[in-house]
Amino acid sequence: MSRAIMLLHCPDKQGIITDITNFITVNKGNIVYLDQHVDYSEQIFFMRVEWELDEFLIPKNKLEEYFCTLYAQKYDMRFKIYFSDYKPKMAIFVSKMSHCLYDMLARYTAGEWNVEIPLIISNHPDMQHVAEMFGIPYYVFPITKENKAEQEAKEMALLQEYGVDFIVLARYMQVISPEMIEHYPNKIINIHHSFLPAFVGARPYQAAYDRGVKIIGATCHYVTNELDAGPIIEQDVCRITHKDTVTDLVDKGKDLEKIVLSRGVLNHIDRKVLVYKNKTVIFG
Amino acid sequence: MSRAIMLLHCPDKQGIITDITNFITVNKGNIVYLDQHVDYSEQIFFMRVEWELDEFLIPKNKLEEYFCTLYAQKYDMRFKIYFSDYKPKMAIFVSKMSHCLYDMLARYTAGEWNVEIPLIISNHPDMQHVAEMFGIPYYVFPITKENKAEQEAKEMALLQEYGVDFIVLARYMQVISPEMIEHYPNKIINIHHSFLPAFVGARPYQAAYDRGVKIIGATCHYVTNELDAGPIIEQDVCRITHKDTVTDLVDKGKDLEKIVLSRGVLNHIDRKVLVYKNKTVIFG
Amino acid sequence: MSRAIMLLHCPDKQGIITDITNFITVNKGNIVYLDQHVDYSEQIFFMRVEWELDEFLIPKNKLEEYFCTLYAQKYDMRFKIYFSDYKPKMAIFVSKMSHCLYDMLARYTAGEWNVEIPLIISNHPDMQHVAEMFGIPYYVFPITKENKAEQEAKEMALLQEYGVDFIVLARYMQVISPEMIEHYPNKIINIHHSFLPAFVGARPYQAAYDRGVKIIGATCHYVTNELDAGPIIEQDVCRITHKDTVTDLVDKGKDLEKIVLSRGVLNHIDRKVLVYKNKTVIFG
Amino acid sequence: MSRAIMLLHCPDKQGIITDITNFITVNKGNIVYLDQHVDYSEQIFFMRVEWELDEFLIPKNKLEEYFCTLYAQKYDMRFKIYFSDYKPKMAIFVSKMSHCLYDMLARYTAGEWNVEIPLIISNHPDMQHVAEMFGIPYYVFPITKENKAEQEAKEMALLQEYGVDFIVLARYMQVISPEMIEHYPNKIINIHHSFLPAFVGARPYQAAYDRGVKIIGATCHYVTNELDAGPIIEQDVCRITHKDTVTDLVDKGKDLEKIVLSRGVLNHIDRKVLVYKNKTVIFG
Repeated sequence: MSRAIMLLHCPDKQGIITDITNFITVNKGNIVYLDQHVDYSEQIFFMRVEWELDEFLIPKNKLEEYFCTLYAQKYDMRFKIYFSDYKPKMAIFVSKMSHCLYDMLARYTAGEWNVEIPLIISNHPDMQHVAEMFGIPYYVFPITKENKAEQEAKEMALLQEYGVDFIVLARYMQVISPEMIEHYPNKIINIHHSFLPAFVGARPYQAAYDRGVKIIGATCHYVTNELDAGPIIEQDVCRITHKDTVTDLVDKGKDLEKIVLSRGVLNHIDRKVLVYKNKTVIFG
Repeated sequence: MSRAIMLLHCPDKQGIITDITNFITVNKGNIVYLDQHVDYSEQIFFMRVEWELDEFLIPKNKLEEYFCTLYAQKYDMRFKIYFSDYKPKMAIFVSKMSHCLYDMLARYTAGEWNVEIPLIISNHPDMQHVAEMFGIPYYVFPITKENKAEQEAKEMALLQEYGVDFIVLARYMQVISPEMIEHYPNKIINIHHSFLPAFVGARPYQAAYDRGVKIIGATCHYVTNELDAGPIIEQDVCRITHKDTVTDLVDKGKDLEKIVLSRGVLNHIDRKVLVYKNKTVIFG
Repeated sequence: MSRAIMLLHCPDKQGIITDITNFITVNKGNIVYLDQHVDYSEQIFFMRVEWELDEFLIPKNKLEEYFCTLYAQKYDMRFKIYFSDYKPKMAIFVSKMSHCLYDMLARYTAGEWNVEIPLIISNHPDMQHVAEMFGIPYYVFPITKENKAEQEAKEMALLQEYGVDFIVLARYMQVISPEMIEHYPNKIINIHHSFLPAFVGARPYQAAYDRGVKIIGATCHYVTNELDAGPIIEQDVCRITHKDTVTDLVDKGKDLEKIVLSRGVLNHIDRKVLVYKNKTVIFG
Repeated sequence: MSRAIMLLHCPDKQGIITDITNFITVNKGNIVYLDQHVDYSEQIFFMRVEWELDEFLIPKNKLEEYFCTLYAQKYDMRFKIYFSDYKPKMAIFVSKMSHCLYDMLARYTAGEWNVEIPLIISNHPDMQHVAEMFGIPYYVFPITKENKAEQEAKEMALLQEYGVDFIVLARYMQVISPEMIEHYPNKIINIHHSFLPAFVGARPYQAAYDRGVKIIGATCHYVTNELDAGPIIEQDVCRITHKDTVTDLVDKGKDLEKIVLSRGVLNHIDRKVLVYKNKTVIFG
């Protein structure tokens, strides 16, 4: 059964929920999910609503226009509407490590995710055999300081060709340039191997070891121009002890990274993430 | 600023949210919290809504009647309305252990909880000095098989005298009789020192040790006639190892018990718990 | 550099550590790991010690005999000696679900585990394509009440042919018969999809949902004749809420299951697990 | 039964464990705890050993001298010997918040800790009533920029008068001066209300809120001259969501802070913490 999912935010006012639920109900949509959140410090209202389209009177291709005219202007809303019968297209960027890649491809192949993965891009050939195992085209774009702009341009052409909606950096060890980020605003998902904002940048496990922390973490976030400082989607941690070497941290961290990344990606796929001012609202 | 809090559930139908938010908004209530949940396996709609009463047109003492007439009958609802300016009265039952008692009294004395604790009841004199430190009347009712009915009758008389709304069993080592439970349906909160439904009954830490589990837990639940089988409000766990003796489990468990109990009690005080068919909906 | 790993236990007495460390040091072994544990309730001493063999004076094939003669008899010890340069052979048993299988094969293929996986056995053909992706022989033995003894006999013949040291049940939905368990004592590792001893047996997620728990878990344990009651190697949990359906529990549980199983298997591979009286000592 | 506890570290060499266990066993000490750790990156050996003194041949007041002469010089060791029948004296420093204070005093009064708390020091009079409830002397030293050196000198005189062994800062909102830290090296325990090294300094909950993290933490560490950068003893975390305001973080953080602080203090009291180069080894 096809559903519409709407994510919106606007200045908080009385009557918004009433208006929106009225709009859906009157037009014979059956609400199957509704959650709202008010950020009182910013006076902003957030909402995620999902309804069945079977008897819905407004055609899918008119929905955005109608809603915009009737309510979005009135409440100064920003909103997005998604349909459950569209499978978003996701590209994976990877370097040399396989754990996040395997984890996502296993979920994908098992049919757990409502997504299509038309291609994998890498700066190294190392993961080609994994891509082949799962039958997904694998493109290699080696990156140097000199060719970075050029290579990213080719990557973007390829992404456009494949109709890619969002990108997942599965331990991709290259900084994405502002040009590319601009093309995919809050659509590039990264996994950072630390409990951000601790240990930004390179070699966070070594840094965690040196600092002597008792817990390590991983952070899934959208990529912005400031390194490791974009909106956080998901985090998790695990305990370590003085017995753990840097290698142990790397090994334990792999499990964290892949689980945290996959949780974050699933929330993105399921349209449960709303970004506002470098923070996320994650609807449950 | 005074607020009304309504918890309700009813068979799921279209238009409920619209009707209720309309009802509040039209009568000049400002909604500050709304969360809903649909249990699709049972086809039941659950809702918690909170609104400011300053300009609300319906007087507090008429609210229940109006809502009942206008909506509850229409939707076959069960609902409860609470007002934020009423401080519920909570009795603590305790036996010989102090950790949960101290933890709750410290929060209470520091003003963290919107509650009044007019008395503490025990089957032993051991915790009298703690009650005295915090200036709270302490009543001892020693319980034997023979006098149990009689003593509980006296306790209930005392609870009524003090206008007690709900009871917290802070490691109270007596089974509550069906008569008393009937007087306080989903109003007696217990902490059980295991991860229920594992290790029901007496000596759960010994049982956990004997089974060789790697994680222990604590469970806060409402008391029903079946032992340790009432609706679960909150649970938490902590890791243990083969190095931990039964005494270590008891010590680590104390921290779990007091935190889990206090979280559960706070959810109850804040009217965030809705019980349906031996399970709870906990609004966030 | 080759190492010896010894796991032992015996009645607790003075001088054991001294004797053993003396034995190793005098014979020019360099101790790189030593951990001991005393269970005071049972008065049993447990130890794991690991040493480099480069200059060790006793040949590998004489080590067991020498240690037995010199110390094991004296202290009434049970001990096992393993060598780091032997790769244990592990068989995977699987039914229809892929998540644990993928997770282990990804680690294996990436070279994370010091193990060999010569074959996968199943009662269904469903996972054949996964085995093929990773280039591992896959054998199907459909099991019915009538043919169970016969099929298990064939499986055991195959396991012997491949020189299998231990078996991992990766959500294998068949009860292993006592005959097979007897051949692999504490060498069959299972993942149960609940926080044991809660929800033993079939459909634990449905049972967890029905009970209304706030946390679900997974348990990795050795298989014994009593269902889901063998020595626990590893457990972990994750939070759920009233919003989670049984399907959600199954999905969240998959991540738990695969991580908990892989952690347990890794501990087994690394010779960190010592079983005593249906409980495990896990050396860190 | 009286026990000796020895914590030591030295450059890693063969034979240390043998020598030390020999020393204890030969002199009729019964080892009841032994754990060792080798930091291979630093080539340092760490050990904690605990033995019963009943039949031990070396008198307590000669033990340090004998061990130093016989072994510490040989191995270039740093070591400390403690006796279980000495109750260390602990001072609490507090400002205006009660949660950590109550938590520690409740454990202390219940006899959970092998410690004496002879006094509480504060820069504010606010917690006087709590100290009085528990019958512990409370001294107020208001601190300004101008009088800080003078007031700390008075505090140190008082600490010496009471024979204080170590200090716990229970949300004490003053930076300790280098002079005082020098007098109590690795003997001043602080609780910082963030997951260090994230959010060093003032207002960490506001900073965590602004950054949009999904998990908050608390860190118990020894105080050094660099702010919030001393050796970490214990950390823990809890999940938050976009629904949590800064006030919610403060409230949830209180539970974290008190549990993490109390765990860290207990490890210190039980002589389980060994500091080496701004990191801790925590023996289990």
